Amino acid sequence: MPRWKPDARERLVMAALRLFAEKGYDETTVAQIAERAGLTRSTFHRHFGDKRDILTAGQETLSRLLAEGIAAAPSDATPMAAVAAGLERASRHMTSVNRDIGTLMHAAIEADEELRRRNTSKSVGMAAAMTEALTRRGIPEITARVAAELGVMAFNLGFSRWTGPVDGDPGELAPLTRAALHELHAAATHLH
Amino acid sequence: MPRWKPDARERLVMAALRLFAEKGYDETTVAQIAERAGLTRSTFHRHFGDKRDILTAGQETLSRLLAEGIAAAPSDATPMAAVAAGLERASRHMTSVNRDIGTLMHAAIEADEELRRRNTSKSVGMAAAMTEALTRRGIPEITARVAAELGVMAFNLGFSRWTGPVDGDPGELAPLTRAALHELHAAATHLH
Repeated sequence: MPRWKPDARERLVMAALRLFAEKGYDETTVAQIAERAGLTRSTFHRHFGDKRDILTAGQETLSRLLAEGIAAAPSDATPMAAVAAGLERASRHMTSVNRDIGTLMHAAIEADEELRRRNTSKSVGMAAAMTEALTRRGIPEITARVAAELGVMAFNLGFSRWTGPVDGDPGELAPLTRAALHELHAAATHLH
Repeated sequence: MPRWKPDARERLVMAALRLFAEKGYDETTVAQIAERAGLTRSTFHRHFGDKRDILTAGQETLSRLLAEGIAAAPSDATPMAAVAAGLERASRHMTSVNRDIGTLMHAAIEADEELRRRNTSKSVGMAAAMTEALTRRGIPEITARVAAELGVMAFNLGFSRWTGPVDGDPGELAPLTRAALHELHAAATHLH
């Protein structure tokens, strides 16, 4: 996987997450985030409204990619195949910078109650985007919601394995989300 | 279903949710909540730390009931049967007061962005409690997570049908969560 250099926006996110983990979310100021990133406050505000936006950075992009992948799946794709196409599209866009951010996000969330609470709304947004993209394919609402929920769980499980401690090159995210979806779907068909 | 008279705690929750819907969460004070409920601020503080606690009122109880129902299921129950037992136990505890609170909660959440975000962490807590109760039964982690997620979706779907507009007596919650679990499980087995 190529090592991409983080841009200003990504440097701000990383600096913020390091500070959240060290000092807590409430105690961290925008001035401190900008300073840690080696940038000015006005650069911060060109990218983000306030520090809350750090947590949702990338969330709209992720939801959009998931929905686009689902929309682009072949017209005869099953609900699971459409979800797999969404995960594939989103996973392919994740670079080593996203992996670094994921690792820092995990550390920050572990260290701060407020962040833990705020983080949960991410999965809700992803599930809503996937459900909508699936119902647009004519999949019934209930089926779409179940398929989307499995898709979110698969993305989160694959992502947490990708950003967790690994020996050597972590490789790409896509095979991990694909494997996670396979595991979760197998589990869903053996609940009785 | 018997009509239970709300106690002080429940009156405070109802007063708070009405104010959140009318004025927004940020604009509502503890003094206003106590006044609307016809109680004092010190009564408020005997029941709640601050107004944030209004939103999580009942959440620990709900998670506990779900977990207890799962733990008490017959030892040969399938994962789905164990989840159904959890839903049954929790649903049986919901009275018409819970239904009124659910309706007010829905209105307050619709009216306030901040409340919408905070509300999402409820499902995460329920899923965690159910997953833990299922793994204690020896069910593998992945299977437990999928079963728990379906259980949470079933509870939420059944509860939203129960608290939504209905003609006449809404009846009890239990048959609605049971039917929702059945629908969701059927959908999960037809994703391919």
